[in-house]
Amino acid sequence: MIRGNDPILLTPGPLTTSLATKAAMLRDWGSWDQSFNAITGSICRDLVDVVRGEATHVCVPLQGSGTFSVEAALANLVPRDGKVLVPQNGAYCQRILKILGYLGRAHAALDLPEDRHPTGAMVEEALRADPAITHVAQVHCETGTGILNPLPEIAAACARHGKGLIVDAMSSFGAIDIDVSRYPVDAVVAASGKCIEGVPGMGFVIARRAVLEKCQGNSHSLAMDLFDQWTYLQKTTQWRFTPPTHVVAAFRAALDQFLAEGGTPARGARYARNCAVLVEGMEALGLKPFLPRAIQAPVIVTFHAPDDPAYVFQAFYDRVKAKGYVLYPGKLTRVETFRVGCIGAIDENEMRNVVSAVGETLAEMGVRRAGRVREAAAG
Amino acid sequence: MIRGNDPILLTPGPLTTSLATKAAMLRDWGSWDQSFNAITGSICRDLVDVVRGEATHVCVPLQGSGTFSVEAALANLVPRDGKVLVPQNGAYCQRILKILGYLGRAHAALDLPEDRHPTGAMVEEALRADPAITHVAQVHCETGTGILNPLPEIAAACARHGKGLIVDAMSSFGAIDIDVSRYPVDAVVAASGKCIEGVPGMGFVIARRAVLEKCQGNSHSLAMDLFDQWTYLQKTTQWRFTPPTHVVAAFRAALDQFLAEGGTPARGARYARNCAVLVEGMEALGLKPFLPRAIQAPVIVTFHAPDDPAYVFQAFYDRVKAKGYVLYPGKLTRVETFRVGCIGAIDENEMRNVVSAVGETLAEMGVRRAGRVREAAAG
Repeated sequence: MIRGNDPILLTPGPLTTSLATKAAMLRDWGSWDQSFNAITGSICRDLVDVVRGEATHVCVPLQGSGTFSVEAALANLVPRDGKVLVPQNGAYCQRILKILGYLGRAHAALDLPEDRHPTGAMVEEALRADPAITHVAQVHCETGTGILNPLPEIAAACARHGKGLIVDAMSSFGAIDIDVSRYPVDAVVAASGKCIEGVPGMGFVIARRAVLEKCQGNSHSLAMDLFDQWTYLQKTTQWRFTPPTHVVAAFRAALDQFLAEGGTPARGARYARNCAVLVEGMEALGLKPFLPRAIQAPVIVTFHAPDDPAYVFQAFYDRVKAKGYVLYPGKLTRVETFRVGCIGAIDENEMRNVVSAVGETLAEMGVRRAGRVREAAAG
Repeated sequence: MIRGNDPILLTPGPLTTSLATKAAMLRDWGSWDQSFNAITGSICRDLVDVVRGEATHVCVPLQGSGTFSVEAALANLVPRDGKVLVPQNGAYCQRILKILGYLGRAHAALDLPEDRHPTGAMVEEALRADPAITHVAQVHCETGTGILNPLPEIAAACARHGKGLIVDAMSSFGAIDIDVSRYPVDAVVAASGKCIEGVPGMGFVIARRAVLEKCQGNSHSLAMDLFDQWTYLQKTTQWRFTPPTHVVAAFRAALDQFLAEGGTPARGARYARNCAVLVEGMEALGLKPFLPRAIQAPVIVTFHAPDDPAYVFQAFYDRVKAKGYVLYPGKLTRVETFRVGCIGAIDENEMRNVVSAVGETLAEMGVRRAGRVREAAAG
């Protein structure tokens, strides 16, 4: 690690951004000024294009973290008498259920183990069993584990039953294909600081225009009123309340780099290489991924913690950080794990380096049984 | 204006920040990492100290613009069966009333003209007249006009009647003294991109600990649940959801500069000089401030638009911007005005320069009657 440099973030956002992205924050922008509003407008257009929604969808940006946008999407797009089905296989699905509780929207969970994804057939069965359901809220890549949920078949199931679909695409947007022109989606929600590789501070909801137009009065909150934000943006080209101007400028710079790289296919391919190099390297050290490869999204990988008394997560984390890499703790309750992100302005060289750093750290700590996973996980 | 430089923002946030503040955003931080969490902790401690709340208050940071924090404060600190009195003399007071409508909290407005501030006696009379009122929500400096509302006497009135007080100190915090050790305040709300001179993207609520402790279950929103955010911060030192890491790092840098300058007294004095130089210069050009000096906060000044057919705001704005200064439109409905901010990393030299730029612009546009204000305003 170069003396004075920051460690590389192998976390699922905030992540390591390019210097060009950060340097875009070296200017101050007036939030009323036309030059700033033009940036907002171009970002919204480009984001809609990413999911091929030009003909049908609009983008509404929102201040705050991604969770603010997820809450806003649910509050605005699900009518107060709606009911939401949540296929549930991880922490971010559970967060959606929690939000629905706050909002007082009826909801049902389709509970699955964390290493299993829902299928179109499961969703159809749930929709048939409970006709009161009006919407499905689906996490695309569940960052809790890194599992990829099969969006196209779930969208098809929703379409067959005429149900609305809200997709939390927080950690997939820009890395894994989403195509709202091929399957109907009411809203795709993501944020600046994920696979577009901006800095955190704003989210966005790409909503079907015909649906959003009918959402006046649904919101529980002024600050999170997407309908109001969208209406005001159309009228004035401005955000309603002070936008995070520097974050927005950095997001524009990040989007420029995303487009120059070749958009979702190129970014997804880079992340897939990162993920493959990481998994192969870690497996060579004896560390076991939590998920089978077939359902692993190339975004963040959960590894079992070694069942070795010499392994202590905080010490492991601190030592790997001192070697230049910031890991991420696990988010599973049943099993002890840690996570390594594959996203950000990094390539497979960084993944080789982090594997070396992890290997050296395990040796320093005297962890010998890297491949042995704890009892609870073996069953 | 130096070629390639950005214009100076004379707007009430976002504002012109120092290079040191912006340069703090040239690093990426892990939101789970101890080094980042230490920044959050130190910011919260310093913000509580600004209002001398060390013994009684805690600071809860929140993602989003200042309005998100105002909404969160109202939603969390006013119980669902509470009733809020809003002394109302401008756009940000009206926004509070709008938020209370969304939240379904009972409320009453004490309506005043935009150039008149409420008094302790008026508030006491309103409290006596309606015993159902449980809280007062007071905007300290109403950015719509720039008027300073007399916080100490309103706080004293609330205290005499045992009512809670929530202060929207968005554009006063750090510039005008607030002392919660001298008069009781339940919550002081402000944001990063105002008089502390950070960049926009986070707000904060400095809440009386004994009050906040009783707020579990009040919030309408998961994202804006201050009680939950505070509880989680205490337990983990982390924000619940992805913080705007770069904004937070810049805010730390801005706070360092604020403290080095001498805190609120020094910053308030610099802004007061800025304001005096601006008002004197503009008056010499014939432009009339909307407010009498005695009730003008040294934050943003509203000027009457000249009643001259040659004056068109957009052209005026564009020409002044080309000379290096971004002005702000007026926010009054009755009278045509424009606003000039006195805050940000600027001093009286910039104020002299903007006065020159305005003078030259009026001459270029052929505006001769700068001092004549339109009929509607004369009365």
